[in-house]
Amino acid sequence: MKIVAAKKILKANDQLAAENRARFDAAGVLACNLVGSPGCGKTTLLEAVFPHIRPHCAPGVIEGDIAGSLDAQRIERLGVPVVQINTDGACHLDAAMVGAAAAGLDLNAIDLLVIENVGNLVCTAGFDLGEHVRVLVLSVAEGHDKPLKYPAIFQGSHALVVSKMDLVPHTDFSIEEVRAAMRRLAPEARVFELSARTGQGIEPFAQWLLEKRQAHGAA
Amino acid sequence: MKIVAAKKILKANDQLAAENRARFDAAGVLACNLVGSPGCGKTTLLEAVFPHIRPHCAPGVIEGDIAGSLDAQRIERLGVPVVQINTDGACHLDAAMVGAAAAGLDLNAIDLLVIENVGNLVCTAGFDLGEHVRVLVLSVAEGHDKPLKYPAIFQGSHALVVSKMDLVPHTDFSIEEVRAAMRRLAPEARVFELSARTGQGIEPFAQWLLEKRQAHGAA
Repeated sequence: MKIVAAKKILKANDQLAAENRARFDAAGVLACNLVGSPGCGKTTLLEAVFPHIRPHCAPGVIEGDIAGSLDAQRIERLGVPVVQINTDGACHLDAAMVGAAAAGLDLNAIDLLVIENVGNLVCTAGFDLGEHVRVLVLSVAEGHDKPLKYPAIFQGSHALVVSKMDLVPHTDFSIEEVRAAMRRLAPEARVFELSARTGQGIEPFAQWLLEKRQAHGAA
Repeated sequence: MKIVAAKKILKANDQLAAENRARFDAAGVLACNLVGSPGCGKTTLLEAVFPHIRPHCAPGVIEGDIAGSLDAQRIERLGVPVVQINTDGACHLDAAMVGAAAAGLDLNAIDLLVIENVGNLVCTAGFDLGEHVRVLVLSVAEGHDKPLKYPAIFQGSHALVVSKMDLVPHTDFSIEEVRAAMRRLAPEARVFELSARTGQGIEPFAQWLLEKRQAHGAA
């Protein structure tokens, strides 16, 4: 019974996700589902990356949180259009929530829509939001064993951002272990090493986002 | 329909949790549900705490992971009895899984059962496993804003362990903000500041666990 219900929910979600994607395509918007653990640095990454991409492309953000609007306030301070979703307990965004939130944005005025998901390495893996790319953030502080323990979210991501690289000297984190795991789980995915705190490695990730956006616009 | 199903599942879970708790009580075992984000340092905390408590009390562990047995191997190396649960995609443990896993342990030979939950700040909050205390681990690297964004898991916890305190000088983490949030969300909960890496603050947390165990055994 539980399984049937889950399948039905996922089927309905996939249909709504396809509708979201068609809407984003019609407006020439590249949609990016940004996932990662609580506190891995998703909002901080956006604060660091947006200054690099804004000369070339207009970003917009949908912020997903269980409660509060702290992250949306941070994005708003950058002058970037943002809509906050409060999931009221739900552990991941779904396509219906994103569709409703997208109605609050002028899609024709933006080129890149970042959907910052709820901090969760598990449940977010199962729900297509209508995005074109999924970017996973893993902070150095979480440890290099996470791909082995949460394989699904790594497998389905187009890029892995290893954040807080400035903390490497204070941990036993091995970037080689992460890269080896990614070669097995998601050989096509790009891996970026960066620190929003120092600015190290932000530029290559910003470039990758811009290239994805350009390739999408040209298609 | 979804809500009804969820309520039924939770009701069944509560019944199984009560059965687990009765089993633990009969064996004089204090059960602790250890929750926190992926990579917050749950297993590392156990590795640091067990040497302090083992002269006084015999621990056992149930390890919950979506995949793999890395954490169970680490516990096994300490010579502590351990059973691994692989949830096969599920984002939290439930009482049925814990009941099945507990059958694989000799409860009469242990005094303290730590149930290390799947790394997840959301879904783990809703499921009673039959524990007597819930301990939440928050790593400094996750940031001090987490209580505002994931209030439910903070509210229901009996102790908050702020881990990786050695990273404070390398972040903008404010322990005062966390303590202020805890005074609002869970005024009864104890807050421990520690670093498993340096050993700082391990002893008071170990003492608290021993006191909880003694009070439980005496009750």
